[in-house]
Amino acid sequence: MIKTLAVVGATGAVGQIVLEEIQQQNLQYGRLRLLASKRSAGKQVTVAGKSITVEALEPSALEGVDVVIASTPDEVAAEFVPWAVERGAIVVDESAFFRMDPKVPLVIPEVNPEAIHDHQGIIASPNCSTTQMVVALKPLYDAAGLKRVIVSTYQAVSGAGLAAQEELVKNTQLQLSGAAQQPSMFPYPIAFNLIPQIGSLKHEGFTSEEMKMVHETHKIMGDNTIQVNATCIRVPVLIGHSESIYCETAEPLSLERIRELFRNAPGVTLVDDLGAKRYPMPRDCANKPDVFVGRIRKDLNHPCGISFWCVSDNLRKGAATNAVQIGKLLSDKFANVPA
Amino acid sequence: MIKTLAVVGATGAVGQIVLEEIQQQNLQYGRLRLLASKRSAGKQVTVAGKSITVEALEPSALEGVDVVIASTPDEVAAEFVPWAVERGAIVVDESAFFRMDPKVPLVIPEVNPEAIHDHQGIIASPNCSTTQMVVALKPLYDAAGLKRVIVSTYQAVSGAGLAAQEELVKNTQLQLSGAAQQPSMFPYPIAFNLIPQIGSLKHEGFTSEEMKMVHETHKIMGDNTIQVNATCIRVPVLIGHSESIYCETAEPLSLERIRELFRNAPGVTLVDDLGAKRYPMPRDCANKPDVFVGRIRKDLNHPCGISFWCVSDNLRKGAATNAVQIGKLLSDKFANVPA
Repeated sequence: MIKTLAVVGATGAVGQIVLEEIQQQNLQYGRLRLLASKRSAGKQVTVAGKSITVEALEPSALEGVDVVIASTPDEVAAEFVPWAVERGAIVVDESAFFRMDPKVPLVIPEVNPEAIHDHQGIIASPNCSTTQMVVALKPLYDAAGLKRVIVSTYQAVSGAGLAAQEELVKNTQLQLSGAAQQPSMFPYPIAFNLIPQIGSLKHEGFTSEEMKMVHETHKIMGDNTIQVNATCIRVPVLIGHSESIYCETAEPLSLERIRELFRNAPGVTLVDDLGAKRYPMPRDCANKPDVFVGRIRKDLNHPCGISFWCVSDNLRKGAATNAVQIGKLLSDKFANVPA
Repeated sequence: MIKTLAVVGATGAVGQIVLEEIQQQNLQYGRLRLLASKRSAGKQVTVAGKSITVEALEPSALEGVDVVIASTPDEVAAEFVPWAVERGAIVVDESAFFRMDPKVPLVIPEVNPEAIHDHQGIIASPNCSTTQMVVALKPLYDAAGLKRVIVSTYQAVSGAGLAAQEELVKNTQLQLSGAAQQPSMFPYPIAFNLIPQIGSLKHEGFTSEEMKMVHETHKIMGDNTIQVNATCIRVPVLIGHSESIYCETAEPLSLERIRELFRNAPGVTLVDDLGAKRYPMPRDCANKPDVFVGRIRKDLNHPCGISFWCVSDNLRKGAATNAVQIGKLLSDKFANVPA
């Protein structure tokens, strides 16, 4: 059990789901504190039938906290995480800020749970688009190695926060009423449109989101030889990222073996029967913790090529669910330490 | 000039654009006849300021027609095209029914215009998702050869007709008002969702739409060695198909050379400046005849790997524009024959 658990960013889109997931995963704590921006301080939030007052995120608020689960923008994490670590807390951070720091483990509990042992106060949870891809690729990697991945994403607006969801709804209404859309969270109107940019220009024409999928995959898998090429696209979907993944294993796998690997993989749900019109779709995967996989096909030419379709709730496994799972690993660790 | 031109399916989504494109491309004809299902017969349609009565599509209606441009479902094409050919007409057919027939040329005027000479009364226009991809790949193929293509599509609902566009609008309104969506053109609700199935199960887990991209690419390019793997996804966009295309040429090309090739390719418009947030999007490409290309990147590892993003109006270059361009080629041919 964690003596004092703090949820930072408790009033945000992901923070609210962190609170749900704490209950659903039965993460045990003695005391729960909720921290957020000054704007949200003083609000009452009900957790497990108990009303808790949201506190402002400032250094003193982190005194006496054992574990923090944090969902904040990068710049907020950069500032507050050191406050928490200096005061002896372990921070499970969902922001991108510390992910590539060599001293910070980047953890997906189904993939590299052992990495949490090496933390120095900070454990990072990966980017949403990376997490679901790596959960799906791990069983293939373990069974047959993994040479390359070519992925095209179909990312929901909720990856950009609650305001982005509101913008999709509002801009859709505007478009349907014949008025011009008014984008502010996105560079262009998103209703009935696709925007082929997530993040900013980072490296030789690739965006920051696309390069996260390269670097984070290497770090989580502990294997820099996997060749990853990503194209990240924003689509007018509220919740649930989808990915068209092509990969080449080192050794060939039969279709039946691939299905068996997915069926037995932790955190993966196989939905794969095109003839019966069964495949993962965002509307079915929203609000579920798993990574859904279907439309599995062997390359028509390359003996080690595999295509599949992967959908997951970007706010759950892509963020809150994974962070709370890391909290569970920590909680087990606390349990093993004599009091 | 074509003496008598008939437009079959004149009242459909694509047929209406065929009539526009005939004007825009200045396809010359002596007489224009409009044919459609019995349901639409008798309707008046205004073309170039002149009201024309729609005639029912039956064998006798094809007497005296020189060229037909047809946008109908496959089963309609299967029945009426022979009526037209028997009566001496040349049919430019947008349906899939005759495309893979070895006696039928499959033509994209920017790619294989010479193929029209071998027709035996039928010339087929390719599938929308194939056409824009092949137009974009052709300059790369000519410059450096083409070994393989891995493509993921983001296909607008208008590929399934006017009723599908109405369904997206209606289902979006239902969803926004809190009611359940009522799909009929699609197997599942399409508003704020993605459906990873276009067409039916065809070959080893691939859909008919995905296999069209393989076979039609081979036929148009005249090269069966190009390895194509496609994943076709329906997205909640009204008009404009988008494609995330990864390809490997036989020889390496520099980024500057790739841009130059696209810049000079017929039918291609380059929109490629991520730093300035310039890239093709469906909302900008709808109602335009070109194939738009951007987000060009070299593979981070493979010297011959290229990723790019390709958007085109599926009802224009993907259907009507291409068919009328074939009509123009035929018209030029008619001009060369002494009267």
